[in-house]
Amino acid sequence: MSRPRCDLVVENAAQVLTMERPGLVGPRRGDDLREVGAIENGAVAVHGEEIVWVGPAAELATAVEVDANAVRIDAGGGTVTPGFVDSHTHLIFGGSRHDEFERRLSGQTYLEIAAAGGGIRSSVRHTREASEDELARLGRERLDLLLRHGTTTVECKSGYGLATEHELKQLRALARASDGHPVETVSTFLGAHEFPPEFAENREGYVSLLVEEMIPAVAEAGLAEYADCFCEEGVYTPEQARRVLLAADAAGMRPRLHADEFSPSGAAELAAEIGALSADHLSAISDEGIRALASSDTIGTLLPGTTFSCRIPGADARRLIDAGVAIALATDLNPGSCAIDSMGVIVGLACLHLGLLPSEAFTAATINSAHAIERADRVGSIAPGKQADLLILALPDYRCVPYRFGTNHVRSVVKRGRIVVAPNGRLEAARA
Amino acid sequence: MSRPRCDLVVENAAQVLTMERPGLVGPRRGDDLREVGAIENGAVAVHGEEIVWVGPAAELATAVEVDANAVRIDAGGGTVTPGFVDSHTHLIFGGSRHDEFERRLSGQTYLEIAAAGGGIRSSVRHTREASEDELARLGRERLDLLLRHGTTTVECKSGYGLATEHELKQLRALARASDGHPVETVSTFLGAHEFPPEFAENREGYVSLLVEEMIPAVAEAGLAEYADCFCEEGVYTPEQARRVLLAADAAGMRPRLHADEFSPSGAAELAAEIGALSADHLSAISDEGIRALASSDTIGTLLPGTTFSCRIPGADARRLIDAGVAIALATDLNPGSCAIDSMGVIVGLACLHLGLLPSEAFTAATINSAHAIERADRVGSIAPGKQADLLILALPDYRCVPYRFGTNHVRSVVKRGRIVVAPNGRLEAARA
Repeated sequence: MSRPRCDLVVENAAQVLTMERPGLVGPRRGDDLREVGAIENGAVAVHGEEIVWVGPAAELATAVEVDANAVRIDAGGGTVTPGFVDSHTHLIFGGSRHDEFERRLSGQTYLEIAAAGGGIRSSVRHTREASEDELARLGRERLDLLLRHGTTTVECKSGYGLATEHELKQLRALARASDGHPVETVSTFLGAHEFPPEFAENREGYVSLLVEEMIPAVAEAGLAEYADCFCEEGVYTPEQARRVLLAADAAGMRPRLHADEFSPSGAAELAAEIGALSADHLSAISDEGIRALASSDTIGTLLPGTTFSCRIPGADARRLIDAGVAIALATDLNPGSCAIDSMGVIVGLACLHLGLLPSEAFTAATINSAHAIERADRVGSIAPGKQADLLILALPDYRCVPYRFGTNHVRSVVKRGRIVVAPNGRLEAARA
Repeated sequence: MSRPRCDLVVENAAQVLTMERPGLVGPRRGDDLREVGAIENGAVAVHGEEIVWVGPAAELATAVEVDANAVRIDAGGGTVTPGFVDSHTHLIFGGSRHDEFERRLSGQTYLEIAAAGGGIRSSVRHTREASEDELARLGRERLDLLLRHGTTTVECKSGYGLATEHELKQLRALARASDGHPVETVSTFLGAHEFPPEFAENREGYVSLLVEEMIPAVAEAGLAEYADCFCEEGVYTPEQARRVLLAADAAGMRPRLHADEFSPSGAAELAAEIGALSADHLSAISDEGIRALASSDTIGTLLPGTTFSCRIPGADARRLIDAGVAIALATDLNPGSCAIDSMGVIVGLACLHLGLLPSEAFTAATINSAHAIERADRVGSIAPGKQADLLILALPDYRCVPYRFGTNHVRSVVKRGRIVVAPNGRLEAARA
């Protein structure tokens, strides 16, 4: 049997976290969340965009034929992990809400903040006012930041336009921000993020606009792979969410759902019922919701940055895991409730705010998050045949990511077999 | 009147956070903690190691004579703040306790961890085993990390030697790590951090060793400016702490105190009584303790990284402030209870974990922290005559530090008038 050739090798890794174990397929649940497939003193071999081999460094020479001019990356005794997969963000928006952050800390309520022009409507106003150019530029800056923190694949939602023209603008801005950028983006239409002010007294009218005009327009333009809806008391009812998401599904955009963030509205149950890819937030999920998710293929995506930033209790992660829900982690990056861009910080918060083990947090932030956006065949783990999306962390063990909380330990990033963040911190990305 | 000359200018700052207001002197208390002295569209002028002017950019040309070959730093519309002052760390130690971090998350108790060889004794073992060279090298790497996160002055304690020879080794390693490094260090003797295993059955014997041998040896070698003691139920009693700290004071090392971290033992009262510079932790302080601190010059140093990392409630910061305690913030960087090295993260945790306002957190992390180590005449604020320790943050407003939590927003660092972290992330430090 001929040995595979390779043109890039990562060597001298104290640990390679493959996220693979023989027999483990599909989203990980229960104790399988702890199976990180660590290889001590490991190496990874890549050819083109693809991983061809991973194993103990001592076996590299016999297992792989290394090209004479292969790129050799010295991990310096660090840890190699798959690139983080951030499966829930609101990447494209105008404005900043740091004022509101301070007002929340000083005890103002959501209603007081909204009355002062704050809240999501402030982001809608700023996003509507921004040009597509400006939104694309801001998006690109944010993708650079995500990349420096080790995110190599990210889901991005619209939802600050809340009008056909502005939702399309947001989605086009995302496409332009992403074009030629090393971070892979996945696009989700979230026209049902809120009700726009002009439909405050006619919510059903806006739902009809979503179903009859916006979804067809987004589908026609091919701008979104998924559709999402903020199903929550005071926002979209489960009935409204069902109508929107079924219409989106029929138009080719598979559903995902903002579910049970502040109160249990039956959103998790709806997600399971309609076969949503993921039900996200879940900080107020009911027992019925947990049972529904556990017996479905819908992934429960936890967003600990959001509850932590809002100073409220996080999702009951242990109960979800024990019940058999497959969980993922994401930043929820957005201008209001969570402006965190680092998945390493999210892994730390998953441990310190939600009580996950480091192994569970890494599984949720890589392979399970990849499942949540239907990319697990290509990203989220280190295995032959998968895309070479790799992080080199300046740490001897993956558990140091949450232990040494709050510092960006990413030394270098490889995306599709190419070095895109160099050890000197430079972004090496070829720009479109 | 002749205008001051300057050889370095920081320009194009959306905001300069001076931490100064006319009439404010001494450690800030109560509402004064909110006075950050922000100048919009500001500039800072430096000559040699010293700030000569700060004000609105429009006034720079008339206020200052800029040398023809002056260094001009473009803040790029960012925010300029004083360098962070981290007034409580355990910088010098051997070993890593990420294993223990995981065991804590999985529910093991302190006693179970200690029985498995973990806890502070594990750090004592590794620190005793490490050579002075190795400890100095590790310390220097940690100073580099602190600097990248904007800390320009840091207090560092011994306390993992717990034997004369090893305490002296730790303090010498600190002096060597610090030598020629841009981060200014302040050295504290913490031989009374715990009782070493060899004195487990003879605690008074160890206290006598501290008083009769270690304190004189440290004072003789001139290796520490301050002395500290871990006064806590099960560790040092207030009586033991008093004996140790009064002996240290008499030997020229002013006292500071680990006080009321897990239970109220009267430590805060002791700190006030003996005129300690600071009483640190305070997560379990009593009403009497608060009253004692409020009516003293002792600063209350809060360490939110520690309670957050240990998943326990933080200090009641609002109550301390309302009672009139002058508060400071620090990382507590150590291998056990808090391995956080970023003061920006501590500012974020001060807001999100303790409920401080961003303004209060910045005051506590700069000027008040400088007071806690008797350096407020030179560092902790931006004013003519003070040392030019400046951060350029890639943020339009200081409140974005906690709002955009967990990301290192430090673009560039100036220490004593010299660029020591360049915008490309390079450490420009001249090495000894």
